[in-house]
Amino acid sequence: MLASVCRALLTCVPLLWFAGEAAGMPDPAQRELLMLEEALTQTGGKVVLTAAEQKLDARLRQLKEKEMLGAWFPPAVHFFKARALIQRSPIFKLLQRMPKGGALHVHSSALVGVEWLVKNATYRPNCYICFTWDNSVRFLFSQQQPFPRWDCFYWQLLETLRAKIGDPTGFDNSLMQHLTLFTEDPDSEYPNQDVVWEKFEKAFIAAAGLITHAPVLKDYLYRGLLELQRDNVMYLELRSGLSRTYELDGTIHEKVWALKIFQEVTQRFTKDFPDFLGARIIIAASRALGVSEVKAAVKEAIQLQKDFPDIVVGFDMVGREDSGRTLWDLREALSLPADLGAMLPFFFHAGETDDEGNDVDQNVIDALLFNTKRIGHGYALAHHPLARDMSRQRNVAVELCPVSNQVLKLVSDLRNHPAAVLMSEGHPMVISSDDPALFGTTGLSYDFYEAFVGIGGLKANLGTLKELAVNSLRFSSLPEPLKDKAYAMWQKKWEAFISEHS
Amino acid sequence: MLASVCRALLTCVPLLWFAGEAAGMPDPAQRELLMLEEALTQTGGKVVLTAAEQKLDARLRQLKEKEMLGAWFPPAVHFFKARALIQRSPIFKLLQRMPKGGALHVHSSALVGVEWLVKNATYRPNCYICFTWDNSVRFLFSQQQPFPRWDCFYWQLLETLRAKIGDPTGFDNSLMQHLTLFTEDPDSEYPNQDVVWEKFEKAFIAAAGLITHAPVLKDYLYRGLLELQRDNVMYLELRSGLSRTYELDGTIHEKVWALKIFQEVTQRFTKDFPDFLGARIIIAASRALGVSEVKAAVKEAIQLQKDFPDIVVGFDMVGREDSGRTLWDLREALSLPADLGAMLPFFFHAGETDDEGNDVDQNVIDALLFNTKRIGHGYALAHHPLARDMSRQRNVAVELCPVSNQVLKLVSDLRNHPAAVLMSEGHPMVISSDDPALFGTTGLSYDFYEAFVGIGGLKANLGTLKELAVNSLRFSSLPEPLKDKAYAMWQKKWEAFISEHS
Repeated sequence: MLASVCRALLTCVPLLWFAGEAAGMPDPAQRELLMLEEALTQTGGKVVLTAAEQKLDARLRQLKEKEMLGAWFPPAVHFFKARALIQRSPIFKLLQRMPKGGALHVHSSALVGVEWLVKNATYRPNCYICFTWDNSVRFLFSQQQPFPRWDCFYWQLLETLRAKIGDPTGFDNSLMQHLTLFTEDPDSEYPNQDVVWEKFEKAFIAAAGLITHAPVLKDYLYRGLLELQRDNVMYLELRSGLSRTYELDGTIHEKVWALKIFQEVTQRFTKDFPDFLGARIIIAASRALGVSEVKAAVKEAIQLQKDFPDIVVGFDMVGREDSGRTLWDLREALSLPADLGAMLPFFFHAGETDDEGNDVDQNVIDALLFNTKRIGHGYALAHHPLARDMSRQRNVAVELCPVSNQVLKLVSDLRNHPAAVLMSEGHPMVISSDDPALFGTTGLSYDFYEAFVGIGGLKANLGTLKELAVNSLRFSSLPEPLKDKAYAMWQKKWEAFISEHS
Repeated sequence: MLASVCRALLTCVPLLWFAGEAAGMPDPAQRELLMLEEALTQTGGKVVLTAAEQKLDARLRQLKEKEMLGAWFPPAVHFFKARALIQRSPIFKLLQRMPKGGALHVHSSALVGVEWLVKNATYRPNCYICFTWDNSVRFLFSQQQPFPRWDCFYWQLLETLRAKIGDPTGFDNSLMQHLTLFTEDPDSEYPNQDVVWEKFEKAFIAAAGLITHAPVLKDYLYRGLLELQRDNVMYLELRSGLSRTYELDGTIHEKVWALKIFQEVTQRFTKDFPDFLGARIIIAASRALGVSEVKAAVKEAIQLQKDFPDIVVGFDMVGREDSGRTLWDLREALSLPADLGAMLPFFFHAGETDDEGNDVDQNVIDALLFNTKRIGHGYALAHHPLARDMSRQRNVAVELCPVSNQVLKLVSDLRNHPAAVLMSEGHPMVISSDDPALFGTTGLSYDFYEAFVGIGGLKANLGTLKELAVNSLRFSSLPEPLKDKAYAMWQKKWEAFISEHS
């Protein structure tokens, strides 16, 4: 028979199974062992829980079982519909209180909730607004009436417009709609990935005029750290393109200014909140750029990292993978640091796609070949067996952003997220929020909820949460002494959390 | 630093990566090798294609790339909306012509398209219909007006009713609606798994009165084989509970009668179509039954297998896993064959669920511990690393039924089907259709399309298709000599297919 298979396929695979027959009752002890071994393999499976932790763990499991029996299981529902359910969840409330370590995958343009942007930034004097032909908005702070631009002809002073319209709440809500993807009816508004990405990119452009105004930027960054700190996050690695910023009189600041502001705000914030460790920047360039532009961006990043070694930690390519250049397209630019003998760690987005076997899908392999320190999303990694092994052996953590992946329509029911496979294998992993403002989240608790309840299912336990939190420090770019400090700070918070909730 | 991690997690994982720095340009040859090695690992990756096959393979890849650029990518869309798109696909047309081997996971009650049931069976004389209070129907062939039943009070002769209504096409379409899940608007009709399963079970009950009528059953089985043969399938392993059947005069035939009919029809069919190898039965019991009832079913199956060794090949538990008994619940019944020293191979459904970590999710482990020969669906297998390894090492193939999994709402976009992970690892796998009548498919081509285009993506090639087809013989229950015959028959068909299409 074997010969026939070989003939048929021109390859030989031995067949063993039809020799055996129906087995008798499996040995319950052996069965237990098997299930235990699987449990040990998963993320956090080897974490030994204290008695107090075990108590909290049992409570979490009960709560999770209850949540699974509800009419709507939140992780199976689009986040925009599930958010209200999640907010009422006792598991979510516990996760909000839990010290979650660091947020390692957040984009600077979507760091702060849109409520703050509208209620604070747009209420400042000299804020102008302009409606574009494609139903978007632009903002600009200016001492005088701004000049018309190619995309925007008629600028109005927001203060005047708001007064004229007379319904500030309604008006402000409509402004928020321009700055976020959040909507009550995501399925009809965003029928596919193309539509949701179009709105996504529009919202970034709309926010830019507010965020790149120098005085707003300072407050924005402080506010961003505050939202994380309030969610019991203690550290941030922010992806940022370091835009140029502007003053009211039209003065333009170069990128370095934004870096200095970032440093200054972080220092002020950690002084105000000594339980917050700090924040650092991964410089991001758009994958829509050409090779020579990326080369320039890489060189600039090398220089900025030399000049700000405590703040600039590395480099990434950002933007929609399915429509941008692949890492391999950009290989000449990305090999520059090594060619120049420079230090520039990479933290590449890779595999944020549903497509299999095309050039974009190969980004996960190239990210690893370029020695990336972590993989942003790595949604495609699960079906790359070799890359998956490489990533695990080298301890290259996947930055899992469940809410983002669902909202950007990679997956609808989060129980089908491929990270379920990675978690079951104990693949190195951290949880992050990607673009909280765009998705209507704040901090990391929503993403922890989806990962813990939806992706991990009943198998994920308090050990999983603990490992995910510790991972966010372990896989951070922090130098050793700071890492030690971070662990110690986190450990203290964790013990307090446990004694408070067990 | 390591000490701190260990303190924090009470476990130790060494960290290696921060030693290395940004790599230079990856060696293109090494990169190619890596990608090649991944390609070799996938299902069919090691199949060596002839020149003619390579030509067809290149064409298939071109067609697939084109299909991926369309406004709607069929595997990402609910099958009920995608079916018309798929029917127009040149890939689908090729798959229809392709010799696909055997169908190893099909349920007898949903073997034949509902069009035949309505246009043929319900047009026979003496067919009565009754509408139930819960908007379902019952059929019954009877010489006289049937008695009212608990679920059905008023029986009408179908012929009379159809004439009275006057719109036979509209009426017949409404009958079909009762017998299939197919609908134009699946998202609103089936908002969740519970609703779709309820309709699913209703449709089975509705069809029963037709199919269990002895004269219909004979034609039904023949028609079922014909639909497979027309789709270039050459063998069938049918899951069947072997219902008792009835004659017009009320005579009831026991299960053995149905087995004999099955044997007789199969023999007649293979005489009429000598390119069709045959059909065999996996006896199925409902997981809604209690342990003692399952014990009786197992004993009965053992006896039937002794009496019909060429027809009865094994045993399975069927019905919705999420609401039925687990294999472990039924362990006393399932260990009976071994206890009695009997031969009764198992072909268990296991892991047809989205839930993780609950008792149902453990079915995949228990199926393997009970030495199952194949795993029906195995949707949950991908996140069971140990069970996955066991399954692969023992060559226990997963019976992948993509259309079924999508329609029964385990996954919406088939690119997210966990079998993508299994395929990337070359996990033993066959493709089947589960319940073609319920899903509006016929043969295996729709499921092959979804697996090849959606789950496999661009990575899946003609080698994948070839291995999947050969797998359906290799992992069948056929004894060695018949397997050899099957390979030879298939090989001849395959060569003809290739020479016709390359």
